[in-house]
Amino acid sequence: MSAVPPKLEGTAYGRGPQHPNDLLTRVGPGTPCGEFLRRYWQPVLAGHSVTTRPREVRILGEDLIIFRDRKGRPGLLYPRCMHRGTSLFWGRVEDEGIRCCYHGWLFGVDGQCLEQPCEPNKGVNLASARQPWYPLEERYGLVWAYMGPPDKMPVLRRFDCMEPLEDGETYVANDASIGSHGDPNGPDVVPYSWLHMNDNIMDPFHVQVLHSTFSVTHFVREFEVMPTVKFEDIDAGVIYKAYRKLDDGREVDRVSTWMIPNIMSVPNVQLVHGRSNGLGFSVPVDDTHSRILFCSRQAVGEDRRRGTGLSNLKPWSEMSIEERQDRPGDYEAQAGQGPISLHSEEHLVTSDRGIAMQRRMLEREIRKVMDGGDPLGVAFGADEMVRVPSGNFFR
Amino acid sequence: MSAVPPKLEGTAYGRGPQHPNDLLTRVGPGTPCGEFLRRYWQPVLAGHSVTTRPREVRILGEDLIIFRDRKGRPGLLYPRCMHRGTSLFWGRVEDEGIRCCYHGWLFGVDGQCLEQPCEPNKGVNLASARQPWYPLEERYGLVWAYMGPPDKMPVLRRFDCMEPLEDGETYVANDASIGSHGDPNGPDVVPYSWLHMNDNIMDPFHVQVLHSTFSVTHFVREFEVMPTVKFEDIDAGVIYKAYRKLDDGREVDRVSTWMIPNIMSVPNVQLVHGRSNGLGFSVPVDDTHSRILFCSRQAVGEDRRRGTGLSNLKPWSEMSIEERQDRPGDYEAQAGQGPISLHSEEHLVTSDRGIAMQRRMLEREIRKVMDGGDPLGVAFGADEMVRVPSGNFFR
Amino acid sequence: MSAVPPKLEGTAYGRGPQHPNDLLTRVGPGTPCGEFLRRYWQPVLAGHSVTTRPREVRILGEDLIIFRDRKGRPGLLYPRCMHRGTSLFWGRVEDEGIRCCYHGWLFGVDGQCLEQPCEPNKGVNLASARQPWYPLEERYGLVWAYMGPPDKMPVLRRFDCMEPLEDGETYVANDASIGSHGDPNGPDVVPYSWLHMNDNIMDPFHVQVLHSTFSVTHFVREFEVMPTVKFEDIDAGVIYKAYRKLDDGREVDRVSTWMIPNIMSVPNVQLVHGRSNGLGFSVPVDDTHSRILFCSRQAVGEDRRRGTGLSNLKPWSEMSIEERQDRPGDYEAQAGQGPISLHSEEHLVTSDRGIAMQRRMLEREIRKVMDGGDPLGVAFGADEMVRVPSGNFFR
Repeated sequence: MSAVPPKLEGTAYGRGPQHPNDLLTRVGPGTPCGEFLRRYWQPVLAGHSVTTRPREVRILGEDLIIFRDRKGRPGLLYPRCMHRGTSLFWGRVEDEGIRCCYHGWLFGVDGQCLEQPCEPNKGVNLASARQPWYPLEERYGLVWAYMGPPDKMPVLRRFDCMEPLEDGETYVANDASIGSHGDPNGPDVVPYSWLHMNDNIMDPFHVQVLHSTFSVTHFVREFEVMPTVKFEDIDAGVIYKAYRKLDDGREVDRVSTWMIPNIMSVPNVQLVHGRSNGLGFSVPVDDTHSRILFCSRQAVGEDRRRGTGLSNLKPWSEMSIEERQDRPGDYEAQAGQGPISLHSEEHLVTSDRGIAMQRRMLEREIRKVMDGGDPLGVAFGADEMVRVPSGNFFR
Repeated sequence: MSAVPPKLEGTAYGRGPQHPNDLLTRVGPGTPCGEFLRRYWQPVLAGHSVTTRPREVRILGEDLIIFRDRKGRPGLLYPRCMHRGTSLFWGRVEDEGIRCCYHGWLFGVDGQCLEQPCEPNKGVNLASARQPWYPLEERYGLVWAYMGPPDKMPVLRRFDCMEPLEDGETYVANDASIGSHGDPNGPDVVPYSWLHMNDNIMDPFHVQVLHSTFSVTHFVREFEVMPTVKFEDIDAGVIYKAYRKLDDGREVDRVSTWMIPNIMSVPNVQLVHGRSNGLGFSVPVDDTHSRILFCSRQAVGEDRRRGTGLSNLKPWSEMSIEERQDRPGDYEAQAGQGPISLHSEEHLVTSDRGIAMQRRMLEREIRKVMDGGDPLGVAFGADEMVRVPSGNFFR
Repeated sequence: MSAVPPKLEGTAYGRGPQHPNDLLTRVGPGTPCGEFLRRYWQPVLAGHSVTTRPREVRILGEDLIIFRDRKGRPGLLYPRCMHRGTSLFWGRVEDEGIRCCYHGWLFGVDGQCLEQPCEPNKGVNLASARQPWYPLEERYGLVWAYMGPPDKMPVLRRFDCMEPLEDGETYVANDASIGSHGDPNGPDVVPYSWLHMNDNIMDPFHVQVLHSTFSVTHFVREFEVMPTVKFEDIDAGVIYKAYRKLDDGREVDRVSTWMIPNIMSVPNVQLVHGRSNGLGFSVPVDDTHSRILFCSRQAVGEDRRRGTGLSNLKPWSEMSIEERQDRPGDYEAQAGQGPISLHSEEHLVTSDRGIAMQRRMLEREIRKVMDGGDPLGVAFGADEMVRVPSGNFFR
């Protein structure tokens, strides 16, 4: 038998199983990360998506029904009617709530059962009958839910990049994962873990490759310059400062912010000078799916797609697989990591330092919740305004 | 930290897992309910659906092939040829049975192997070669199978609502779950447990809500009156008597019958006076699917759809999801309970008394079979005629 | 209670679970059969299917990316980029290899990382960075991979039916499972275990039934004569000699060859006199899917479909289910055995002797590998020419 040829090193034979970091990616009820994320208000949908037509929504691995009663109040209920389990998706929205189709039980947006029409006196022990529910708030054009322990409900934080609205501005919200594929007709839920987009946000280098030199110009030509990057911890998050000296002599610092647990503030992608005026969220649908939501202050009438920089390209949903191979974007790069990435086989290098810092902070705060503590960024009682340092700053 | 706001009671947080009643819903071989149901002849398909074209049919979690040989005898065989496992779905029906496509083994409707053409003398030890099979009987336009222990085969019962045929009458059978969606082009198998429709039959109240005041009028306006209901055990089943005083002064008792194990006799849904002339069956396909079969005596040439009362509506299969939300029916209410309902979270109330009685009887009889006994409603030897009290009776 | 009616013998009641022979059908990494098959070079695709467009390919339960760099070298890599896990399916093929879309890491066809553009000096410790890979060879129009232990890599064997090329001949390869359905537009992967086609090859009798008297004439009318068959072990395989005395008085011996582990040499199916000039392979995609590949010497310009004998029939992919029932072929017979056949319920008879011999040899060699030995048919060092006795020989 001949000796091993040198070229046979490193083959895929016998590699053994690989695995994700479950601590950061399992989001269902009772999981460490799931309980951690439930300690924060999470945006569920844009306000305009919540109507008198009941809608199924999955978030943090829970299937729920969201609707807006005829008085305008949004409601988020467990889907199976507490009576005999028929989904309230088939229910009818009325002034005071939603009515199950099967035997007509009526529930308010807070789950309270208001009527059982087939029972004597239209209801027996109504006061104690309650459909499982979650509280909602509306802000910045988004509908936010608190899905955590009732005695730990924090205030819904305010962000200084979002207010006050200036003259002629309005809040514009998008709940259709446009931040992944840039296409209003693309999938509103993307088939991968919330951590993929969360990792992506502290990764200034892929902007130079994926969005510029590898594929077509997704945003602006200036991103073809490889930046010099500094990562820094902030109070409850991580930022990067990406410095570029442009060909025309201009110099720019691009500051991007990630805030715990899953909040992203990316500066204007057209490299317009000034502070960021928007927020993004990578919200788990379940372990293997997520929804990217955005809200921003925009001048009334502004074209929402301008911000994506993709307006001159064929929309994602109309591209063939081959066309997507020829000019991949965030969707391909992140879906390409699989439903959940296999963190055990990653090779993080110096350019991944921001991702490592984020994950470290997440792990620390998740363990804090496991140990009974309150994680960074939750505030009780007083209103809290969070400072968001993001922006493009030309020197 | 502030105290718990009162409005945060009853949220969906931390509810823990819910579960079905497995005793009533698991139907595969060897399960308590599966063995119980196998003690009765079960209708498989309408006679007109069994032809010389082999057809796959799943029943009680078992995949089988059904066909009619060229002499007219129906056969129900295990699908995988006993020789090398090719499905007899690809077989050819001949005068004496069905022939496997791969090596030509021929089997009679009783599974007997009649020929092995590639073997010496066209067969070795033919007498002992038998394809697994089940016996079939034809009655009331349906083909019935006995899938239970060979030494426990009961007689196929007769029902007094089905015979004798009067002059000009014929048996009409439907095996396409039309009782769920009312649409000849709807799915012939519905994606939920057999227990959903079985529960539905002793539930006179949903007729007032789902079929009348909630949705459109599925049957007749008279059902908008909330009935006064009495439930009663009968020998091997449960009935309800729903009394209504109509707006025009007429009074009517509507008597509906459920018979063990999964037999339903609903009175005429147009509220025509008189005894019922039909039977329905909620037959498990597997744990999470079922087939609703009907047979009835009808005048020759009568429009089968008249009985459903839905003839003036857009057919189910052509409705959009939104249209189904606007006027749901049994399909939505029952599919809306999920593949198997989660009985641990139900809240049965006074109007659910019939359902509770049925389930109690089922549980008792299932346990009887587990203990080696014969369940209610099986009869050996002598022909048995079952009395069915259903009907609409105006006073 | 009456006694058991005799006709109730042999019903499908209470048969208990059946199972495949896992030793022969589980092909993933670490399984006995998987490790056995990995000791041989396996054809992955036809050479013409491997291009500068990256392509996903699954083989032996492993998902891989195959491509040809711009210098013409084929590469077979683990799909998830070693850096952060994005699939190289979205990568770009360059002169020296394939570049990941996310951060631009470049890998050669041997997995060597050649560039990390976002790192200082375009790479840190490049020499030790290697994407998992498998070696490839090209021969007879096919691309072959060695996926076994690096210190056990054998030579890629030569076969005397494939060389030398005669004047005017060329190699023609097909990787689209045309041997299963005969249709260039049919599925290129078939939904059943590799063992189904492997069994089929030593089964001369189904040619008389499935391909002739049961269905339409798939090949030639001469196959309607039931042959007299002898099976024989050869060095590393099994052959059959099927003798037929034709109606016109001619006599013919048809010799077909199976070689370990999954190599088939079927003589010309038009019954043309002479030695076979082709090879087939039943390659596991995973436990429940396989790909049938062929290579042959053909005169330049020869119609490839002539060999299948199906050129006058409606193509498989255009047939309805009923049409496939009326004239089933290998696809129906083998898919009809299920994703993996249930060997515990087979009844092998005298006409299945070849299959039994094959399986016995496979089991013996699989156990030999389990025990640390080298299986039949692997050769190290010296070039090996395998003799293939297949052919149609008229007396």
